[in-house]
Amino acid sequence: MDLKEIEASVNQHYSEMVQIRRHLHMYPELSFKEVHTPAYIADYLRELSIDVKEGVGGRGVVGRLIVDESLPTVALRADFDALPIQDLKDTPYKSTVPGVMHACGHDAHTAVVLTAAKILSGMKDKLKGNIVFIHQHAEEVDPGGAIQMIADGCLDDVDAIFGQHVSTSLDVGTIGYKYGTATGIPDDFTVVIKGRGGHASRPHNTIDPVAAGIALCNQLQYAVTRRTNAMDSVVLSITMFNAGNQHNVIPDEVTIGGTIRTFNHDMQETMINELNRTLEGLVTTTGISYDLDYMRGYPPVVNDDAMTDIVVGSAEKMPSVTQTERLDPDLGGEDFSYYLQRVPGTFFYTGVRNSSFKADFPHHHAHFDIDEKGMINAVSVMLESVFTYLEKESR
Amino acid sequence: MDLKEIEASVNQHYSEMVQIRRHLHMYPELSFKEVHTPAYIADYLRELSIDVKEGVGGRGVVGRLIVDESLPTVALRADFDALPIQDLKDTPYKSTVPGVMHACGHDAHTAVVLTAAKILSGMKDKLKGNIVFIHQHAEEVDPGGAIQMIADGCLDDVDAIFGQHVSTSLDVGTIGYKYGTATGIPDDFTVVIKGRGGHASRPHNTIDPVAAGIALCNQLQYAVTRRTNAMDSVVLSITMFNAGNQHNVIPDEVTIGGTIRTFNHDMQETMINELNRTLEGLVTTTGISYDLDYMRGYPPVVNDDAMTDIVVGSAEKMPSVTQTERLDPDLGGEDFSYYLQRVPGTFFYTGVRNSSFKADFPHHHAHFDIDEKGMINAVSVMLESVFTYLEKESR
Amino acid sequence: MDLKEIEASVNQHYSEMVQIRRHLHMYPELSFKEVHTPAYIADYLRELSIDVKEGVGGRGVVGRLIVDESLPTVALRADFDALPIQDLKDTPYKSTVPGVMHACGHDAHTAVVLTAAKILSGMKDKLKGNIVFIHQHAEEVDPGGAIQMIADGCLDDVDAIFGQHVSTSLDVGTIGYKYGTATGIPDDFTVVIKGRGGHASRPHNTIDPVAAGIALCNQLQYAVTRRTNAMDSVVLSITMFNAGNQHNVIPDEVTIGGTIRTFNHDMQETMINELNRTLEGLVTTTGISYDLDYMRGYPPVVNDDAMTDIVVGSAEKMPSVTQTERLDPDLGGEDFSYYLQRVPGTFFYTGVRNSSFKADFPHHHAHFDIDEKGMINAVSVMLESVFTYLEKESR
Amino acid sequence: MDLKEIEASVNQHYSEMVQIRRHLHMYPELSFKEVHTPAYIADYLRELSIDVKEGVGGRGVVGRLIVDESLPTVALRADFDALPIQDLKDTPYKSTVPGVMHACGHDAHTAVVLTAAKILSGMKDKLKGNIVFIHQHAEEVDPGGAIQMIADGCLDDVDAIFGQHVSTSLDVGTIGYKYGTATGIPDDFTVVIKGRGGHASRPHNTIDPVAAGIALCNQLQYAVTRRTNAMDSVVLSITMFNAGNQHNVIPDEVTIGGTIRTFNHDMQETMINELNRTLEGLVTTTGISYDLDYMRGYPPVVNDDAMTDIVVGSAEKMPSVTQTERLDPDLGGEDFSYYLQRVPGTFFYTGVRNSSFKADFPHHHAHFDIDEKGMINAVSVMLESVFTYLEKESR
Repeated sequence: MDLKEIEASVNQHYSEMVQIRRHLHMYPELSFKEVHTPAYIADYLRELSIDVKEGVGGRGVVGRLIVDESLPTVALRADFDALPIQDLKDTPYKSTVPGVMHACGHDAHTAVVLTAAKILSGMKDKLKGNIVFIHQHAEEVDPGGAIQMIADGCLDDVDAIFGQHVSTSLDVGTIGYKYGTATGIPDDFTVVIKGRGGHASRPHNTIDPVAAGIALCNQLQYAVTRRTNAMDSVVLSITMFNAGNQHNVIPDEVTIGGTIRTFNHDMQETMINELNRTLEGLVTTTGISYDLDYMRGYPPVVNDDAMTDIVVGSAEKMPSVTQTERLDPDLGGEDFSYYLQRVPGTFFYTGVRNSSFKADFPHHHAHFDIDEKGMINAVSVMLESVFTYLEKESR
Repeated sequence: MDLKEIEASVNQHYSEMVQIRRHLHMYPELSFKEVHTPAYIADYLRELSIDVKEGVGGRGVVGRLIVDESLPTVALRADFDALPIQDLKDTPYKSTVPGVMHACGHDAHTAVVLTAAKILSGMKDKLKGNIVFIHQHAEEVDPGGAIQMIADGCLDDVDAIFGQHVSTSLDVGTIGYKYGTATGIPDDFTVVIKGRGGHASRPHNTIDPVAAGIALCNQLQYAVTRRTNAMDSVVLSITMFNAGNQHNVIPDEVTIGGTIRTFNHDMQETMINELNRTLEGLVTTTGISYDLDYMRGYPPVVNDDAMTDIVVGSAEKMPSVTQTERLDPDLGGEDFSYYLQRVPGTFFYTGVRNSSFKADFPHHHAHFDIDEKGMINAVSVMLESVFTYLEKESR
Repeated sequence: MDLKEIEASVNQHYSEMVQIRRHLHMYPELSFKEVHTPAYIADYLRELSIDVKEGVGGRGVVGRLIVDESLPTVALRADFDALPIQDLKDTPYKSTVPGVMHACGHDAHTAVVLTAAKILSGMKDKLKGNIVFIHQHAEEVDPGGAIQMIADGCLDDVDAIFGQHVSTSLDVGTIGYKYGTATGIPDDFTVVIKGRGGHASRPHNTIDPVAAGIALCNQLQYAVTRRTNAMDSVVLSITMFNAGNQHNVIPDEVTIGGTIRTFNHDMQETMINELNRTLEGLVTTTGISYDLDYMRGYPPVVNDDAMTDIVVGSAEKMPSVTQTERLDPDLGGEDFSYYLQRVPGTFFYTGVRNSSFKADFPHHHAHFDIDEKGMINAVSVMLESVFTYLEKESR
Repeated sequence: MDLKEIEASVNQHYSEMVQIRRHLHMYPELSFKEVHTPAYIADYLRELSIDVKEGVGGRGVVGRLIVDESLPTVALRADFDALPIQDLKDTPYKSTVPGVMHACGHDAHTAVVLTAAKILSGMKDKLKGNIVFIHQHAEEVDPGGAIQMIADGCLDDVDAIFGQHVSTSLDVGTIGYKYGTATGIPDDFTVVIKGRGGHASRPHNTIDPVAAGIALCNQLQYAVTRRTNAMDSVVLSITMFNAGNQHNVIPDEVTIGGTIRTFNHDMQETMINELNRTLEGLVTTTGISYDLDYMRGYPPVVNDDAMTDIVVGSAEKMPSVTQTERLDPDLGGEDFSYYLQRVPGTFFYTGVRNSSFKADFPHHHAHFDIDEKGMINAVSVMLESVFTYLEKESR
């Protein structure tokens, strides 16, 4: 299929792609709790006469478009879970579920891959290989759906994989890419600090867990600024601090949660060590005790050079892509890494920023939205990359 | 009535007093949400043929035992609200209401005054004056029930008042008392710190309200240690810090609450000023904004010397009271102060600590319990004080 | 001697007293390094034909005016050391010694007792007892001169003692007094935090002692706010923090010093314990080691009630004293306490504040100065108290 | 000259090079205060019949070995200042100057370039260009000697430049190199925090500058962890904190100094902004005032690719070099950057680590020492690079 055909075909399916995205946007579901979303996806793929398997690795959906099993197979992956954020934007398609929102664009990812499935299933005769559509649940929450879906066979017979993420850090028209290491190791932790509560006017009769929690969070800044090499990139964010519900009662315990992001195992170990040392120091100083639940995150996404070359080449050819941009690695986590540990592939970034539509809030923000035109580029680059890959393999 | 009679009468009613206390303990109700408790109290008083008024100042109950309106009138006050604490002790009478608990002894206060009502109503002929039983709702939460009940007339025609609080800081057998200033000014505050949320791996794209909240709580220690005179007593406790519900999302805002306790208006103003300055400094440093809700607390309880003399004298005479102890003022708040702004009175402390029964946890603790024997002293001292007062006034 | 005589006599010696004070003010000497000051004092006393002993307990001077050894003996005490502060005020009598200054008024104390000595030595015939003039070195620095002078016999045969301190917290004309506990326990500490230095751009290769020192000082605030009873008065001030001399070198160690002030042994032990726990916690968290030099301070000054009554009575009679004021205890330290452990006495406060003369800076401030008129009250009250005491004892 | 000749020649001069280094090591001089060191260098170069100019740009020394002015000219640069650190090692050649030490290896740099001068001056006939020996004062302290020496003409007629730094992060035998950006922007700052001192037992009467300084240093950690992108590398180290000299006196002010290291102008501006905002916030919160002296540092060293190729090629050929290693940029500052703004060149790193000789302490450490064998590699690589460069230019 040549570029003109791809362009025409994508444009023709644009309004349906928007409908899909908006439908998903209105009915978001939390990670590991997805029910309606995978059913919707499975129904859509079945309509296309694609072979569908549901409940893959728990809640994933896998569609297989088989042309000839002796030919190479390439996978396209989209994640479909949402976040526990209250949608605060004012659009007709805003979330209808209180406290849950597609604030990271997984609705768009799903619409893009479903649209790719529709187009590709309509041109089976032109395909020099097979296509697997991996619709993954639970990307946002450890341990993630990818590792489960792989264990359940979603990569069987797959030779290569493409995935993409929309980005409000890039203007519509831009396709971003990274060679080699693309994302960090996103560890999460939850620590319960246990003191001894009592009346707020007599703190000396208590072991104040709030004061100890404050001290912990404050001291952990030094772990980043004093104990890690500035040349390595490390982020420690305290995102949860939950304590107390009465003005005059010092509570018995507080729960603190956060994330530690690193690019390599050494820094990860350094930070885990510092977290433990800081907690142990607090035990000595304040008399608290604690429970630490440390969840090691996804490995880094490491893109394959040749597969990245294919995406860059495809993007540069697409008329609607006005710019390609090599991006630095960032400390976000992404369980696309597990697929890349098995087969070569690449993970690219599709610009969806457009201030005229207020589509310029950061990801995970309660006003997050996208310029849906960006989805045209996402699906176009995916299709052209698939054709380029299969063409190359068939030579 | 002589001491022997009081002693005998109280002992006779002891098991019923325990029943009342345990009943209330099993069915605690939060401040300003009391429904069954005041109904129970009103029923009990009505049984005694005492004139009862319900809904006084909202949810209070007032019983009037009128002997002769031309004689002096003395009031006995008990509060009856509970706390939002999960009862963790293992006793047959533990709280049956999830997350609500009589962790401050108001159940015992109520049982004591109801028992006093029963005994006094049985000896109307021996009374040289009238008795008002003030059963107050909502002592734990600003603005408290007292100010409402007074506005609704509960002190009309009342000449003097007694109140008491059980204490796990005093052994069973001890009665504590204070001359003059007895409690502090218990201000509460809630501050919402508003930043701008985002992905936890890119804090530089956010205005992190958690970090700002940590800095606030940390810096406020200096307000106490550097800006107040150590000779004045000041407590600032952060008791609530609520932020975030997702490891990888920096939230938009955090809510921090706490209490500031002082003994005088100057220190109160100093601390309010420091809280505001610290918040303003944070605005400059971090770019957050904030909403501060500052609730000025009850005035200090100031006991009347003559009324305190009566209680001390009564306690020293009671055989079951093994010790009386002059106590220092403390920074707890108590809206008994509003009654004392109107009529002379005193507020005393009844020892209920007994390690053999695990009755030695601090107030507001999830394992709080009392040695119920202490209630004997509370009701005995109240009765003897009432007789002494009326005797004195009739001379 | 009657009041008129005292008044006349003090006024007559006023200009000489000012001369003495200004001379000492211009030539201040540091604690335990006093040379010229004690020599000057000894010369002055010898001129008065008073029996003088120098080098008492190191650098103290004791003058004995003996009337009859069988009569009672009363002591007057003045301290004479200065502080390591650069005098920044602009007066003809400002300090001539760089970095050393009488910023606490010990020059005035000395002038007052020398003037008392001059007046008393001129009226030996009217004295109903003996007078001992205790000129003490080193009040400002642990272990203080008092303990040494007592060991060297300065209180031998002494039956009672008076001392006074000028105060810029009280207006000229006011005499302040305290019954019972008057001052706190002024402990000092010095801690050397030992890390491992290195280049400032590579903190992860160091154990940064500056960061650890900051964390220590910050965490110690919580010891005061969370671990001590607000009803007890505790001050912890970090007054010294010395680290580094090159922008691009993280030093090997830092030295931190400060003071901990309490009113009783329990709180003293609590704070020592907290200091140690906080340091131990830092060892665990950061890997530093440390040397702690903890110097327990003087015991509290505890005034004798009868002796205080004498001072109050004397002050109320003096025409130049416009007001007497009962003061609360404060957390300053004063080794006058050692004398009071041996003999009854009292320590009073002489107002020397006068904003018209810029005599309103706090003690230990580089602009500290006094209204010298206040010295008239100090010496008058001392003389009248001596006469009252001896009169009383002779009855 | 072929490699064998270079090798032989360097080995022949090795013991003299060690002598030079040790002489300089024993007599270190602080930046901008160098007197004997430049005189020593000038004498040495004059001995070699090299044209010498002293006092270049203040205290620099420039030697010119001119073969033919029409030929290209290459410069070799060494810095010669020392640091305000007390030498704590125990070697015969330890520093004889109290508090001053060659703790960064500038003594070795000087010995290396002087030895290169000796060897090159002995083979003038073989040189296809001219050599300029730039002996620079004051590399350690802003604004550095380089900018002054360039203004005074040291680069006139120079076409290219080489410089090197010894490193205890690399084993003897290793030559390190960097392409492009090699060092950071080393800004320094000094802030004087002005409060109002007073007696340590009454902090509420003071504006405590020590407490404010602690709060500043603590809060600045958040500037790094929350306000900068972890993908950019930023270091902020507090290296100086000087306050107070008496346990019982809160001082009027404290002086805090440190360094801020960044790789680009944006991050530099972000950090300056954060420093200012944090100080302004403190003004609001605590009432202090402050003086900030901010010294923007050297620009980054940016190595020329072709010149770096020459050094790498030379190093790989030298038998004594066992390994070459491409290094990441680091946040050290180096005013070699000013030369590179004018002419192409490169700055390489010579391994001098050897644990057997205790030559493994970090730079700027009081036990810093080097394995002098490393100087052989430094001078060999410099010589071979000079020959390669001139050879290339003459083609």
